[in-house]
Amino acid sequence: MIDINALFKVSYGLYIVTAGNSESANGFISNTVFQVTAEPPRFAACCNKNNYTSEFIEQHGYFTCSVLSQNTSSDIFGHFGYKTGRNFNKMEGMQLKYGLSGTPVVLNDAIAFLECKVINKVDVGTHWIFIAELIDAEVLSQDVEQMTYDYYRKIRRGVAPKNAPTYVDKSKAEAEVKTEEVKNEVASASAKKYKCAVCGHVYDEQKNNTTFSDLSEQWKCPDCGADKEDFIEI
Amino acid sequence: MIDINALFKVSYGLYIVTAGNSESANGFISNTVFQVTAEPPRFAACCNKNNYTSEFIEQHGYFTCSVLSQNTSSDIFGHFGYKTGRNFNKMEGMQLKYGLSGTPVVLNDAIAFLECKVINKVDVGTHWIFIAELIDAEVLSQDVEQMTYDYYRKIRRGVAPKNAPTYVDKSKAEAEVKTEEVKNEVASASAKKYKCAVCGHVYDEQKNNTTFSDLSEQWKCPDCGADKEDFIEI
Repeated sequence: MIDINALFKVSYGLYIVTAGNSESANGFISNTVFQVTAEPPRFAACCNKNNYTSEFIEQHGYFTCSVLSQNTSSDIFGHFGYKTGRNFNKMEGMQLKYGLSGTPVVLNDAIAFLECKVINKVDVGTHWIFIAELIDAEVLSQDVEQMTYDYYRKIRRGVAPKNAPTYVDKSKAEAEVKTEEVKNEVASASAKKYKCAVCGHVYDEQKNNTTFSDLSEQWKCPDCGADKEDFIEI
Repeated sequence: MIDINALFKVSYGLYIVTAGNSESANGFISNTVFQVTAEPPRFAACCNKNNYTSEFIEQHGYFTCSVLSQNTSSDIFGHFGYKTGRNFNKMEGMQLKYGLSGTPVVLNDAIAFLECKVINKVDVGTHWIFIAELIDAEVLSQDVEQMTYDYYRKIRRGVAPKNAPTYVDKSKAEAEVKTEEVKNEVASASAKKYKCAVCGHVYDEQKNNTTFSDLSEQWKCPDCGADKEDFIEI
């Protein structure tokens, strides 16, 4: 029997993978960027076929990868991880530089970046794996740790978005979140907390001075825009 | 210009990937095992074409992946990471169980394991990426952290073996090791230390009461069997 908890023992970093040019581009939060050969240095990046960024990678043949810091703001996760760029320009308002290929590199909360030229595309089902040659790499900040998926889940209480290779559906996430909460936290007797199953945002009744049930059914997650029904009591 | 230090900001776990059966099998230390789709759960594992385990994966069509604990002994790294199984049976003396496919699972220092059925093999140059369906997964130990490549490098002072996708050649490793040492440690004025560029073992003159130059040219690294000339003064 497959124990889903075993899958969380596999380690990943968290990255913003971006493709396009100065006119038009898109990026998303990825946990699957990894080096596959040393000579020459080649990387693989996994991307959902429905992901808008996939289209840019296919069209332009390049992507950049910003390695996120452990201190990455929730805004960055909300902006790149849980919203599609089909409806708005994700690059607007971001700190950008442009790589050798003209692909934007998102600098917000990034401690390093890689720039890669796609040489192959592999169909693995719901996702593509893009195989790419490393053409540039730079460290942006020496003293800050990189964000890992493990840290994001355990310390930052985040969950993977629906298009992620490591996405766990809500019912499973609920069981998992509850187990973790019971283990790690003493429950408050009065006010309750609710967690967004999409992005991990926590709604605290005490802090907001409003019970969750008093919120309108049109209320949305302030971080990712998920519906009220996407929240799980924790 | 490619700054090799940026590549170390990418996160990986460390695993023993094993293939074969109860009669004949082999395993190696891998840092590139990762989930590529959620529905169904599929994994990818990267393996050097010259790696003996590649032959077993191709022949049997299955592999298991033992997720290593942060406390994994140097012996396990020496045994699986820096020696080929062409000359001896790596499974001998190990704690093993057998998966659904009959593939051995190495239990030593493992906190979880995955078992996967290969569905595709992708040529990425010096390495294969095996794409595989998850058929079994189990947590073996709840309270121990998984080993990450970052922890292995920074805390355990290990380096990637030659066949790893993240291998850095000795001259580059030397520069990197020296920079790290200067940053992190106050150099001892008297006794010197030498580090094995293959496995990261440190020879401390003070502790061994013998200068490195007094060691015979036939002397080998006690952890991985590398030659004396593979050691770098740190």
